[in-house]
Amino acid sequence: MEYIQQKFDVNFSYNVFFSSNLFDTSNKCLSSFLESNAATAYTKKLLVILDGGVANAHPTLTQQISTYLSQVKGFQLAPEIITIKGGEQVKNDLPLLFELVDAVDKYKIDRHSYVIGIGGGSLLDLVGFVAAISHRGVKHIRIPTTVLSQNDSGVGVKNGVNYKGKKNFLGSFAPPAAVFNDSNFLTTLDDRDWRSGMAEAVKVSLIKDAEFFKKIEATAEAITAGDMAAMQEQIQRCAELHIQHIGGAGDPFESGSSRPLDFGHWSAHKLEQLTNFSLRHGEAVSIGIAVDTVYSHLIGWISEADMQRVLQVLKHMKLPIWHALLEKQNNNPSPVVIGLEEFREHLGGQLTISLLRAIGKGEEVHEIDLELLYKAVDICKNNQ
Amino acid sequence: MEYIQQKFDVNFSYNVFFSSNLFDTSNKCLSSFLESNAATAYTKKLLVILDGGVANAHPTLTQQISTYLSQVKGFQLAPEIITIKGGEQVKNDLPLLFELVDAVDKYKIDRHSYVIGIGGGSLLDLVGFVAAISHRGVKHIRIPTTVLSQNDSGVGVKNGVNYKGKKNFLGSFAPPAAVFNDSNFLTTLDDRDWRSGMAEAVKVSLIKDAEFFKKIEATAEAITAGDMAAMQEQIQRCAELHIQHIGGAGDPFESGSSRPLDFGHWSAHKLEQLTNFSLRHGEAVSIGIAVDTVYSHLIGWISEADMQRVLQVLKHMKLPIWHALLEKQNNNPSPVVIGLEEFREHLGGQLTISLLRAIGKGEEVHEIDLELLYKAVDICKNNQ
Repeated sequence: MEYIQQKFDVNFSYNVFFSSNLFDTSNKCLSSFLESNAATAYTKKLLVILDGGVANAHPTLTQQISTYLSQVKGFQLAPEIITIKGGEQVKNDLPLLFELVDAVDKYKIDRHSYVIGIGGGSLLDLVGFVAAISHRGVKHIRIPTTVLSQNDSGVGVKNGVNYKGKKNFLGSFAPPAAVFNDSNFLTTLDDRDWRSGMAEAVKVSLIKDAEFFKKIEATAEAITAGDMAAMQEQIQRCAELHIQHIGGAGDPFESGSSRPLDFGHWSAHKLEQLTNFSLRHGEAVSIGIAVDTVYSHLIGWISEADMQRVLQVLKHMKLPIWHALLEKQNNNPSPVVIGLEEFREHLGGQLTISLLRAIGKGEEVHEIDLELLYKAVDICKNNQ
Repeated sequence: MEYIQQKFDVNFSYNVFFSSNLFDTSNKCLSSFLESNAATAYTKKLLVILDGGVANAHPTLTQQISTYLSQVKGFQLAPEIITIKGGEQVKNDLPLLFELVDAVDKYKIDRHSYVIGIGGGSLLDLVGFVAAISHRGVKHIRIPTTVLSQNDSGVGVKNGVNYKGKKNFLGSFAPPAAVFNDSNFLTTLDDRDWRSGMAEAVKVSLIKDAEFFKKIEATAEAITAGDMAAMQEQIQRCAELHIQHIGGAGDPFESGSSRPLDFGHWSAHKLEQLTNFSLRHGEAVSIGIAVDTVYSHLIGWISEADMQRVLQVLKHMKLPIWHALLEKQNNNPSPVVIGLEEFREHLGGQLTISLLRAIGKGEEVHEIDLELLYKAVDICKNNQ
């Protein structure tokens, strides 16, 4: 049988910058990045898509962005800064997706131009997907404005929207051109968003870095009370661990079944959906971490003391560790537990769930004992 | 300024197989490929999306596919083989795109399962895009059924659909898992499709391989008259040159402005659109090659004799070398020529047009002299 073999590598690289007051004209972080990517032969374009909640919390921001980006050499800012709603709802809105694609067309954003998303993880997921499918991929810059997006989703390579109630059913892997974390955006977060973003730091510390978990234990109450310096430190280390994992584990576009960063997430995704996103992602992840941590104890992987450390740190952050939908409903299986199969399907291949072999060490299993799982749910309930 | 650097390579590889009667149970080409990619722990799924025109031309095909794929070990064929219309119209049909996404969902095609597209380049572009955006990318196999898709588009890494009249406005770069070229599908092509697919071979030979161009000159009349062996040889060499270019030129996902394989294509894309796709892609490319070849002569890059060789070979294939829409219309610019800017925008960056420095050697320019271009159009008209 005759055949021709195709084989090539594609190199991806981008930086995650940490700064404050990005759009202050004295801050050269973003403008230097852009100008170092300018072309001599033509002008590149910029289109900004901004979270309306962020715009409201920072009333002068739109004007600041406009002033700042208009002065960047080699670039032309689109005449409109597009403001859309934020939050998970933007990922359930296909007409909005096409409105943004239309804007890419209208403002002639080509493959060398940049779409800049400013907002929480949901907005960034939507904007990243719009960029990924327009002209087979225009460049995009992420400016995450929440703890959760600055320490986790915003620094990664995924994008996507929900489709017919299935989270991230449509999406792609498309690394950003750059990420800019601006701590000033964190100052206006409401208390729930401030705290719940920490869940991803707990998660990544548990599966990767026992020292970081200890640090989180030591600072959980201070961060919960509003300590910005401690929060910043946490965000940076958490982002770093995510980035190392994506780039270093040999499977950045997730072609295998392994998904260690999804620790605590199989139930979290389903809980978010079943509660119609009244649970924040971080709150759902906190519950997911609690359940899978207790389950790890029940199968003999971690001690009761370590299990309690995990539950305690979540409680110190005033994060939930249990939800009624995890229980059997009138002797029928929990609707969250039914979601295990949906989780497998989205990832594809064998069911693969990360558990804790120790604090700081995740390990995957391919089977879940449902009776033990319900027992874990009970323990979470009683430990609230 | 603090930052974290992300940097990784993603390796892509796939084979393009050449076979005949792929779905004959005695032909192990496709089944061996699939079985070598089976998993022990779970069953992978297969979803076939078939061009209705191909199904009509091969009345037993649907049954054959069903029988063949049902016997592949480790795989489960979806209960339905989805038959859709073929041709460029499928790329103008967003509701159809979502129907196919719905089928991926309904038949639980996960990231380890395969969507198999069987049809011409347009169907494959659509199916590839559906696969690329579902679950952030399910695997897809291409079985191109036309000359044009077997020697060119089907063996590459692009997919996409048209959007609001703009060709390939939505799409992505997503290499297939494998490509299977089945010569038996060529036997039922109508005369126009048979001949017009050769335009891409002329194109790639002109920019890359003078020897191959000579071979095409020598066999053009025989192929046009239906010589299958010569056609096969041409398809294989043309596919090989495309694959070498994509994998070897260092920019498979086209992040730069260079696009040498697009020789003759800036006007072709626009002509197809303006004629509402009554021109086949290959016919439009033939016209595009003719114009850009004559233009290459007018700027002194190739001799008149070489220019005539190119026009002759296209005429021997009974392909068009001129179209009225290339001319000024009542002293207004040609609507095709206006499309130059649209072409630049789709590719992004500087205007970059491939011309011929010699037969077998393409070279890029960044400016087009419009008066010379109209003169080239005139020469094409007079040489028909």
